Amino acid sequence: MRIGILGPEGTFSETAAMLWLKGRGSGRKTENVELMYHETIVDVSESIVRREVDYGIVPIENSLEGSVGETLDLLSSENNEPEMRIIGEILVPIKICLLAKESFGSIRTVVSHPHALAQCKQFIRERLKVKGVEVKSVDSTAGAAKMAMEDEEIAALASEEAAKKYGLTILAENVQDKESITRFVVLSSAGIETVPTGKDKTSLLIYLMDRPGALYEVLGEFAQREINLTKIESRPSKRALGDYMFHIDCEGHLEEKVIKEALEGVKRKVAMLKVLGSYPKAK
Amino acid sequence: MRIGILGPEGTFSETAAMLWLKGRGSGRKTENVELMYHETIVDVSESIVRREVDYGIVPIENSLEGSVGETLDLLSSENNEPEMRIIGEILVPIKICLLAKESFGSIRTVVSHPHALAQCKQFIRERLKVKGVEVKSVDSTAGAAKMAMEDEEIAALASEEAAKKYGLTILAENVQDKESITRFVVLSSAGIETVPTGKDKTSLLIYLMDRPGALYEVLGEFAQREINLTKIESRPSKRALGDYMFHIDCEGHLEEKVIKEALEGVKRKVAMLKVLGSYPKAK
Repeated sequence: MRIGILGPEGTFSETAAMLWLKGRGSGRKTENVELMYHETIVDVSESIVRREVDYGIVPIENSLEGSVGETLDLLSSENNEPEMRIIGEILVPIKICLLAKESFGSIRTVVSHPHALAQCKQFIRERLKVKGVEVKSVDSTAGAAKMAMEDEEIAALASEEAAKKYGLTILAENVQDKESITRFVVLSSAGIETVPTGKDKTSLLIYLMDRPGALYEVLGEFAQREINLTKIESRPSKRALGDYMFHIDCEGHLEEKVIKEALEGVKRKVAMLKVLGSYPKAK
Repeated sequence: MRIGILGPEGTFSETAAMLWLKGRGSGRKTENVELMYHETIVDVSESIVRREVDYGIVPIENSLEGSVGETLDLLSSENNEPEMRIIGEILVPIKICLLAKESFGSIRTVVSHPHALAQCKQFIRERLKVKGVEVKSVDSTAGAAKMAMEDEEIAALASEEAAKKYGLTILAENVQDKESITRFVVLSSAGIETVPTGKDKTSLLIYLMDRPGALYEVLGEFAQREINLTKIESRPSKRALGDYMFHIDCEGHLEEKVIKEALEGVKRKVAMLKVLGSYPKAK
């Protein structure tokens, strides 16, 4: 089994993959699991579509920063053919540390993934920028740690695991503005149908007809059946300002009668409905 | 009149400020208008709250990238006291250029604001990364242009105006993935009440009660009065994953009877309702 994740070694995506495998009862040590490292989220999705990996694990949402636009956009892309499906989700607590080769005094630049930088805004402003430290965005937190390993003037905002992997000193722990959790999704293009477990979620993408009350009517299909929505998020359709697609997550599995009926109702009221997948809810 | 915007000179925020002044019939040359440049969106908001500026103009949404989380978050911040109000909006077409001092060949790093970098993903991947050019995020597009002026190995993704201000060569024009428009909002803390113009918008922030159908019921207050929603966006409440605040924009002015009634209805159904302002719709 090949799993595509964001690389290099030591990213939070790797933590997510480990947790997912653990939940399935497999482990990395199992000889038939191979992690394939990718530079960007788009690269992971391309590997899935080209069937170079069986699964891809990418971040979709953080409890402080909100949605990862890149992931939402690749799920809604018109190029998403053959379609990728969400077949699982994983919750990873994000603890960001300031890592460097030497001491605080030698740091001139701090590097990290834009989302990690955004999550540590306060720390960066109050502890780094005031000392004239420059901020630089790179493709991953682990890539940042790798840079810090090679240059004592560079510090990285990355995971504790990355400190171990790259032999760095943890200068400050838990430097994010607030505790946060990132939700990752497991993607596959293999047309895998998940089996209802009784505690599932279904992810949908809808494009509304342009008339007042359109979203209200769609939500009514869920409300009248007492289906709980766990998320509703608008994303630009990229056609015009103020024109949106909606990503909706609801509780329940596509194979349950009540969900099937709700989706039939929704279908009649929207310009486009795409089921992105049903999968077990993460604990 | 003092207006706080993102600096340095030549940002898209400056273009927005110019357009807003033009719409009001004033111009920069008017001796009583002074633009105050700030490093970050948070800095602009702090100047507003401290009354160092009369107005602040900040980006809130782009037609490709979606919402500017930092702006939504400062409007919903519990520290937003005395409360900032949205008193206007401006639409700015974003045309991003690759700027440098010399030629394409000497570029080793490309710098820009994270949103501009995100908007030029394809160009960066296909034209810059393949040549080993490094990507670096900085606080503003104009700041990026300033860096390019000082170092021939640095290129900036910034506006045509920035090329003029910093004497840079435009190596490539319109390099964003797609044409895009950024919506800016004009903020004030001065308790200014805008006058209904007949073509207004009202921005709201709501925090729902935690029960199925809560959002549906709120939208019903608008739908039953045929009030058009121009935007609905969820943002993390920052309390827990899956716990959201909603930013809703509707057509109409707070002083119109139908809007007043709708808001009274909404208030009875939510845990928190905050009116962020009524203001004339941008053309």
